[in-house]
Amino acid sequence: MAELAKRSGLSVATIKFYLREGLLPPGHRSNVNQAEYDEAHLERLRMIRALAKVARLPLASIREVVSVVEGGGTPVDAMAATQDALAGEVGQGPINAESEGALDRIVAERGWQCEKTSPAYGAAVAALAELEAEGFGGEGLLAGYAEAADLVGHSDLAAVASEESTAGLVRAIVVGGALRRPLLDALVMLAQQHHAQAGRGPADR
Amino acid sequence: MAELAKRSGLSVATIKFYLREGLLPPGHRSNVNQAEYDEAHLERLRMIRALAKVARLPLASIREVVSVVEGGGTPVDAMAATQDALAGEVGQGPINAESEGALDRIVAERGWQCEKTSPAYGAAVAALAELEAEGFGGEGLLAGYAEAADLVGHSDLAAVASEESTAGLVRAIVVGGALRRPLLDALVMLAQQHHAQAGRGPADR
Repeated sequence: MAELAKRSGLSVATIKFYLREGLLPPGHRSNVNQAEYDEAHLERLRMIRALAKVARLPLASIREVVSVVEGGGTPVDAMAATQDALAGEVGQGPINAESEGALDRIVAERGWQCEKTSPAYGAAVAALAELEAEGFGGEGLLAGYAEAADLVGHSDLAAVASEESTAGLVRAIVVGGALRRPLLDALVMLAQQHHAQAGRGPADR
Repeated sequence: MAELAKRSGLSVATIKFYLREGLLPPGHRSNVNQAEYDEAHLERLRMIRALAKVARLPLASIREVVSVVEGGGTPVDAMAATQDALAGEVGQGPINAESEGALDRIVAERGWQCEKTSPAYGAAVAALAELEAEGFGGEGLLAGYAEAADLVGHSDLAAVASEESTAGLVRAIVVGGALRRPLLDALVMLAQQHHAQAGRGPADR
């Protein structure tokens, strides 16, 4: 237990809490006062730590991700559960038929196979509606953003593809996502500097 | 003053505070107890409100943006000042020669004309270094992200190009940027759903 705490970066008290909550399976009893924990326990803890400390998700959301991983879900299932937990934290706006139509068109145009019922879809519709309400919308913007998102999504999946366990994949999506976002934000500013100078189109490769 | 408060969405007390701080020029005195404010005052207030309430910048950063707008800076100057204020809020990491080299290469590859001394450049280097430290780096990721950022930066500039005043442009960059980020985040999730299913490359248009 002490070693598990050291290697996971979590306190013994926190690990005991996760054990009581059923987020971490019990160790293998070696005697009445001692339990053994293996690499799978460590992987699970590091995944929970990423969800709790990096993404700051509530316990109920963490439990949902854990249950998919525990149930032997595929990596796609695990990613969907992680996304749902992350997007669920985003405030969902009211239904807006116009924004939904615009998103439907762009998804069809890009040939994306994605879940219309997922929180991410709802978050995109809500964000679009808010942009429209403030007068900063426009389908040209959406098309450019969707093309950019396609590149980012592909890069993200390539970056996490080498993870061997489902718990490792979830951690890579959460931690990597949190760390990649500031990089993308900063790169966008640099591209803005470039394009502001001459009203250029995207740079030729 | 009352009308200015109503139209800007700020309280009279807040407007008086901005007047005292010199962020808003005094109105045109019509008599000893009355001052007239025009559309330029309203534009300035809406810009300050965006910087203070949406971007949550401290007064010192707002003052810097105001001074560029007040000094008759070009839209490119105003954008640079806004970016510096926004990126300055991002924690700057320690200098990392390796990450800086990787960013230099990708900026050269894309042909971006941008300021190496800008806070945005520093923020990109810091974000890259943190990704590397967590084992989530790689030049393939950076190349994909830079290409995506190019599209986003171009879309952003196109979206704010119709603003007629410099104050309006700054507001569009700040408010639009804050609203566009959730849209991009949500679209990235949808693209991840698509790419997760078959390890596809970016969708063909």
